[in-house]
Amino acid sequence: MFKYDTFRKVIVFLMHDAILAHVQNYISLSKEEREAFLAVLTLLEVPKKQRIVEPGSYIQNEYFVVKGCLKGYYLDDNGDKHIIQFAIENWWIGDFDAFYNHVPSKLHVEAIEDATLLAISYDDLERLFLTIPKFERYFRILVTGAFISLRGRILSTLQKSTKERYLEFCRTYPNIEQRVANYDIANYLGVSAESLSRIRRQMVISP
Amino acid sequence: MFKYDTFRKVIVFLMHDAILAHVQNYISLSKEEREAFLAVLTLLEVPKKQRIVEPGSYIQNEYFVVKGCLKGYYLDDNGDKHIIQFAIENWWIGDFDAFYNHVPSKLHVEAIEDATLLAISYDDLERLFLTIPKFERYFRILVTGAFISLRGRILSTLQKSTKERYLEFCRTYPNIEQRVANYDIANYLGVSAESLSRIRRQMVISP
Repeated sequence: MFKYDTFRKVIVFLMHDAILAHVQNYISLSKEEREAFLAVLTLLEVPKKQRIVEPGSYIQNEYFVVKGCLKGYYLDDNGDKHIIQFAIENWWIGDFDAFYNHVPSKLHVEAIEDATLLAISYDDLERLFLTIPKFERYFRILVTGAFISLRGRILSTLQKSTKERYLEFCRTYPNIEQRVANYDIANYLGVSAESLSRIRRQMVISP
Repeated sequence: MFKYDTFRKVIVFLMHDAILAHVQNYISLSKEEREAFLAVLTLLEVPKKQRIVEPGSYIQNEYFVVKGCLKGYYLDDNGDKHIIQFAIENWWIGDFDAFYNHVPSKLHVEAIEDATLLAISYDDLERLFLTIPKFERYFRILVTGAFISLRGRILSTLQKSTKERYLEFCRTYPNIEQRVANYDIANYLGVSAESLSRIRRQMVISP
């Protein structure tokens, strides 16, 4: 029992370390502020293939990925899947629209690998903005980056070859190509799995 | 001369009133904070068809629309235009990627009507964030809304009929349908001008 507790404490410490390192890339926090922030985070272990967001549900949390890989996707009326986001270490994932606007989610968010997440609830986040306003800056910078990246992805589909878009994808999600199925990457890029396989083979031969 | 000065002061007062009303929907400002904010805004009168952002250029400003209507678009290698944003009263427009990341712009931003804008420079905005941090909140809320709306637009193209997407467009940009050419709205929605005209005619008959 003692050993398990100690082990658990080490794990929690490492996870807290990961998110604090990320936050402190953008804002500096005092010891009290770090503690107040960590106090509102909830640890979540999500096994591979489990979903943390389902369409039609009200979303209480946004999730910071400490370890693992997840995908956010939309199923259309024909049952076709459209992957709109991956999340790896140091990304936030959830359904912003459902989270901020209190409307039912339209998305699925599913773990591709066993994942360790830190969840923050809407109420806790709003309280955090009031008590430690510099978190406004952290999230403003992150969401501005997400907006730029989403708009960039739209421009890329108009402008760039599949190979260029695949390289861009590898830069956005470093090393993810080993962790995600070929057909999921193809789906995200909006190309057939065959085209993507061909491009990946060519790149091995002439990178 | 006296009369012109008075007239000009009234105009500036009304414009400042418009942007303050918008900002104060999200954050409250003291008299000193309002004055500090207004002091970094530059008035800009842009005639119809003039561009305020050109691809390849470095972007110093973001623009708040006091009056008028603008479009942001991308020209692909074939010279085809892709409209990615309109802006009417109380919207901000520019090229976020170029503005925040100091890279050359990829977009054109052009006035569809004579427009009155208030510009803020990158340096002034960063200073504003330092001196009056609540502006972090204002821009965080705006950019979160822009992100949700952009992602919603992507889901809509997967999910909704052209008629539903046109109605959504009219809700996003109230009364804009009288101000923008049919082919520009069709371009934004990614449909042919003929389809859109047919839908608009049907809606007049059976709204």
